[in-house]
Amino acid sequence: MSRITDVARRASVSTSTVSNVLNGRRDRMAPETLARVEAAIRELNYRPNTSARQLKTGYTPLLGLLVPSMANPVYGFIAREIEALAQERYGFRIMVGNTYRDAEKETHFFEDLMAHGVRGVIIISSLADERHVEGAAGRGLVAVSYDRRATPGMPSVIDHVTVDNFESSRIAAAHLIAQGHRRLAFVTPSGRTMSRSEKINGFLAAAQSAGLEGSAQVIESLPADEYGDSMMSELGRMQASLMAKSPGHPTGVIGVNDLLAFGLMAGFRDAGLSVPQDVSVIGIDDMFLSTLMHPAMTSVRVPVPEMAQVMVERVMSRLVDASLPTQEFVFPPTLVARDSVAPPRA
Amino acid sequence: MSRITDVARRASVSTSTVSNVLNGRRDRMAPETLARVEAAIRELNYRPNTSARQLKTGYTPLLGLLVPSMANPVYGFIAREIEALAQERYGFRIMVGNTYRDAEKETHFFEDLMAHGVRGVIIISSLADERHVEGAAGRGLVAVSYDRRATPGMPSVIDHVTVDNFESSRIAAAHLIAQGHRRLAFVTPSGRTMSRSEKINGFLAAAQSAGLEGSAQVIESLPADEYGDSMMSELGRMQASLMAKSPGHPTGVIGVNDLLAFGLMAGFRDAGLSVPQDVSVIGIDDMFLSTLMHPAMTSVRVPVPEMAQVMVERVMSRLVDASLPTQEFVFPPTLVARDSVAPPRA
Repeated sequence: MSRITDVARRASVSTSTVSNVLNGRRDRMAPETLARVEAAIRELNYRPNTSARQLKTGYTPLLGLLVPSMANPVYGFIAREIEALAQERYGFRIMVGNTYRDAEKETHFFEDLMAHGVRGVIIISSLADERHVEGAAGRGLVAVSYDRRATPGMPSVIDHVTVDNFESSRIAAAHLIAQGHRRLAFVTPSGRTMSRSEKINGFLAAAQSAGLEGSAQVIESLPADEYGDSMMSELGRMQASLMAKSPGHPTGVIGVNDLLAFGLMAGFRDAGLSVPQDVSVIGIDDMFLSTLMHPAMTSVRVPVPEMAQVMVERVMSRLVDASLPTQEFVFPPTLVARDSVAPPRA
Repeated sequence: MSRITDVARRASVSTSTVSNVLNGRRDRMAPETLARVEAAIRELNYRPNTSARQLKTGYTPLLGLLVPSMANPVYGFIAREIEALAQERYGFRIMVGNTYRDAEKETHFFEDLMAHGVRGVIIISSLADERHVEGAAGRGLVAVSYDRRATPGMPSVIDHVTVDNFESSRIAAAHLIAQGHRRLAFVTPSGRTMSRSEKINGFLAAAQSAGLEGSAQVIESLPADEYGDSMMSELGRMQASLMAKSPGHPTGVIGVNDLLAFGLMAGFRDAGLSVPQDVSVIGIDDMFLSTLMHPAMTSVRVPVPEMAQVMVERVMSRLVDASLPTQEFVFPPTLVARDSVAPPRA
């Protein structure tokens, strides 16, 4: 059984540096140091002493995880990452609820967590109005909100961990523009979550800076109040067939996420258009499934494992030390170019 | 708030029939009756009185769910179905663990469940040796094992709910044979789970009954001890490129599941072969993603929502009445023909 001093020695750092990594205080750390400490933790299979930790916190070793729906593979992937870290590093198990971005269901879940003595929760929802989450935090839940930033100008009692959603659609649009596309579309379900709003803004900013305000459209579809496994892709498929019918249809189309973009590709195909010869398509998430599409789909990578790690570390740190100030962690997205984008036909 | 008598009246049955449905005693019920009761439950949004139930059982309203990995979209989908039923019908939450088909991790999870006062667990694993599960059941866990049958000739202390895995690959192979294929392959990771063994046997039985023993091969690949999100499809992709190199390669190929079959399609494409003109491919699961492949993939449907319902009902019933005899529930698979299968080139 390795101790924290073993990790420190192997990584050639002090034990307090290791402790900083374990507790999510890594923002002022040199990336090389961080990488070295993480490698040492992994190589030594180091696991903080859970019983000492529980003694300190007095809490049930359970973490709440609220997701819109695990039937969406993106959330299944995040859930696996969170569960593995919570279990392997801290000996915590996960209590999970599918709450379909319904504030009432989310509130009900918070109440159940507290009834079970659970004090930490990770919330994947991105609702614009987070007052019910703030309320639960006020009653003692240590909460981390995923996929949205803190509300600007407001002191927050919860942590926020997110990819830069504005930037994710901005770089997708910029990639299409650089290939010569002038008629652009961004397709999303209606229902303004924070992440969708930010993505819309990023898309429009890229269009504007290229002087394409007049030919860039945001297509908002059905309210996404259904969370069946196939809803998102069906919505993309339907919007693609509608678009394909108009003679001056967009030639560069971005889906709000990969699942919707898979549907866009299928819908354009249904309508007899070729991707990327007739229409280029980009998704956001970079799920492994993107590489299995035909053509393999260009997407914007969202660094899920890295974010999952910070989320778990933040909950655990603030369970131990409730006085830790809340923070906002914003991760950069990266474009992963594959075969679903090409210059438009002359 | 609807009561059981309201459901009975609407479905024109007795309350004890409704109770039989709620408690999973449905095997001797006429399908029309069952459908009527289920419709009435849905329409009236009927939910059994949880507090009365908890009073009876004395157990924490938590259900354990053990999956190989939620990063596999199939398990995310099952997990969502199970959570939704447990929550909406019984007011139970879910404690979930990713255990990678590792008996030691599974045992550790059972211990944690019991430490948390959880008494019901659904196990998705299909390991051939289930003694650790039987052991946990002996110590008081009410367990339902998914995706495998009971060990023949052995009295079991756990319920088993599964699709007929033998039949699923048998009908897939029969479909290829009916299209004229003579050189067949079945591709699976090595590591003989019960479900994989049964699928191999079903495949070989179909080949044998068509006199194709000599030209039907089972390709077992790497041990599947990695449960990354993309492992399964990468394995299919690799096996397809290997197959494509041999001149007399199989023309009809079945993947042990959809994810592996998605990889097969991509791998044949990488090698310059067309699906279905040069090679036909079939998956098993019928995930919604099959319809997004290009060509849309033929698959064998596994009735997940129906099985999830029986699993949740069985755990709940046996929590209330520990004397209920255990049962085996085997569901029939169905072939869903799409565009990835065609007759072989002349």
